[in-house]
Amino acid sequence: MGENIVRKGLDGVVVAESGMSYIDGEKGILIYRGHLIEDLAEKSNFEEVLYLLWNERLPKKSELKEFKEILKDKRELPEGILRAIEELTIQGETPMAALRTAVSMISAYDNDEEVVGDIDLIFKRGMNITAKIPTIIAAFDQFRRGEKDIKPRRDLDHAANFLYMLTGETPDEVLSKTLDIALILHCDHGLNASTFAARVTVSTLADIYSAITSAIGCLSGPLHGGANQKVMKMLLEIEDEKIKPEVWVKNELNGGRKIPGFGHRVYKIKDPRADILGEMSESMGISKGDLKWHEYSRIIEKYVEEKKGLAANVDFYSASAYYQMGIASDLYTPIFAMSRIGGWVGHIIEQYSENRLIRPRANYVGMMESTYTPIDKR
Amino acid sequence: MGENIVRKGLDGVVVAESGMSYIDGEKGILIYRGHLIEDLAEKSNFEEVLYLLWNERLPKKSELKEFKEILKDKRELPEGILRAIEELTIQGETPMAALRTAVSMISAYDNDEEVVGDIDLIFKRGMNITAKIPTIIAAFDQFRRGEKDIKPRRDLDHAANFLYMLTGETPDEVLSKTLDIALILHCDHGLNASTFAARVTVSTLADIYSAITSAIGCLSGPLHGGANQKVMKMLLEIEDEKIKPEVWVKNELNGGRKIPGFGHRVYKIKDPRADILGEMSESMGISKGDLKWHEYSRIIEKYVEEKKGLAANVDFYSASAYYQMGIASDLYTPIFAMSRIGGWVGHIIEQYSENRLIRPRANYVGMMESTYTPIDKR
Repeated sequence: MGENIVRKGLDGVVVAESGMSYIDGEKGILIYRGHLIEDLAEKSNFEEVLYLLWNERLPKKSELKEFKEILKDKRELPEGILRAIEELTIQGETPMAALRTAVSMISAYDNDEEVVGDIDLIFKRGMNITAKIPTIIAAFDQFRRGEKDIKPRRDLDHAANFLYMLTGETPDEVLSKTLDIALILHCDHGLNASTFAARVTVSTLADIYSAITSAIGCLSGPLHGGANQKVMKMLLEIEDEKIKPEVWVKNELNGGRKIPGFGHRVYKIKDPRADILGEMSESMGISKGDLKWHEYSRIIEKYVEEKKGLAANVDFYSASAYYQMGIASDLYTPIFAMSRIGGWVGHIIEQYSENRLIRPRANYVGMMESTYTPIDKR
Repeated sequence: MGENIVRKGLDGVVVAESGMSYIDGEKGILIYRGHLIEDLAEKSNFEEVLYLLWNERLPKKSELKEFKEILKDKRELPEGILRAIEELTIQGETPMAALRTAVSMISAYDNDEEVVGDIDLIFKRGMNITAKIPTIIAAFDQFRRGEKDIKPRRDLDHAANFLYMLTGETPDEVLSKTLDIALILHCDHGLNASTFAARVTVSTLADIYSAITSAIGCLSGPLHGGANQKVMKMLLEIEDEKIKPEVWVKNELNGGRKIPGFGHRVYKIKDPRADILGEMSESMGISKGDLKWHEYSRIIEKYVEEKKGLAANVDFYSASAYYQMGIASDLYTPIFAMSRIGGWVGHIIEQYSENRLIRPRANYVGMMESTYTPIDKR
């Protein structure tokens, strides 16, 4: 490679070997550690997928039971973190920034001494953060509505417990199953920017709290998370303005604007996750007796595919699915984090296991020899 | 470039064009925007260097005055952040993790609406974080000693005000000047890991609070910050054990252990910053009437250079300089952050100005086709 070629996006540059996920963007295939995403969505559950990603194989029954118990043990937040989250809502903090701060704060309550390179400790801490993220998001949402936080329930799995803490109601099977599948689908996706930020952070042998905090900050950017929030904004505008979806989209395209939820740097054909989420969004519509959002989505998808040759991505159908669960649209990206933690922790374990400090170069394009003129003579 | 070559450390891979700093590791040259580091250390001051790095030129007298005033205006911490820092000290949080959390929290008190790509806003926020980092570090140190935080003083510049908040005493000229020079020397250094973590984070167009939080987390790793803390540990062991420095070092080398503060991935000869800091450490020793630490350092430097051919790096002399200022050794890396914020903000501005999402690839080395066996049959 010519030393001076600038690779701004690091497109195509391979920085790691990873056993986490395989993506074939030409064929629309996504695999987690050997398992097709369609199989996992249909037959598995979020906790099992976490186990798979972190342990390189599916758990036995007793292992999964123990794994779920550990997560349940770690769900509750220390009082100090709850008070900090409440203060953040008083100040009007955004949900992703609040999540970043609250996750960063967890380390203060971890009494295990940091031992660099101790993989068991990283596992333990990864489970600690994974268990607490839903509690943070739900507490934030309760506090900003002037309510008290709702304590986690041990009889509910990860997805169902989150919906319970968010709404105060025990979710029905369709709701929990849909969220569980959405969590599976968003769990890992190669070296996306947030996962890479986590790996860069631990490449200095920083701890996992630092790495996950970096990843959350990185995910908060509009070029990474946030697209499904824009998709929902579009669907709601179409509803409010009582305009036909295809007309709304046509106007946007004529105005040279992009339609949110389409296209992907990796997938050239339809994102396999979009197919699964499209079906889930339809099931939810049927269960709620209102297929409106699903129908809007289908019409827009068909139109954009025909006119622009762009396929729907994972964000396109998660929008209407989350909306139908009654989740505020600015929590969609925090929920993305609640899922992607699975990928982040797995990649952090990989990075630690065979670490090299990640330190690229910049080409210097500034001045070479400036004279230091005293301030009175400038 | 072969698509499948794995570049784990991204060594030699150029990911950006930057006008910030030029490093010639063969000749031992470091330049900030055209100005030799030796010139800046001798003639400039930390605030002026921040202005230079962010505005691409030295300020006029009136510009520097205004710049310093803005920083002074932003030094005080909101009550909510002070209370959070106090809670972190009660929990026994480490200084770097506390800094990460407190900086992440600043965004909640920023009432400016986020406007993606607004460079003026990034400047304003960059100054806000820069001004508050010293106050966070000093408050943390006061609280953990069971004291109240000391409010910043407007009549003191950045370095002097920090020493005042840390100790409650107005520092003399030698102390403030030495810290000021140390801040200049650590301010920028190309695409080191923490600066790169900041750029990866904003490449999603995340805000500057997220980026600086990532950078602090990344800097907390022992392969990045922290070396000068280890140097001081070595010097104190030599003192405690009443052993000759050269004997101590010889024992370490014979035991196959590394001597902290030597060698650098970029510099092949002596780091120019080490030369300047070595002189500062000597001046401080003279002013304090105790040249012991400086002498230990010189003996170790000479020995390691002769026996191992390794040159002292920037961390080697900053250790004894900070120690002589009475600063606790676990605050050395937070002080590194207090300086490197200059580089981080400058690189964030560059990244925003010509952004591309940073998304490298991983080679998948996992399984390709696993059958999903039902849990009862595993």
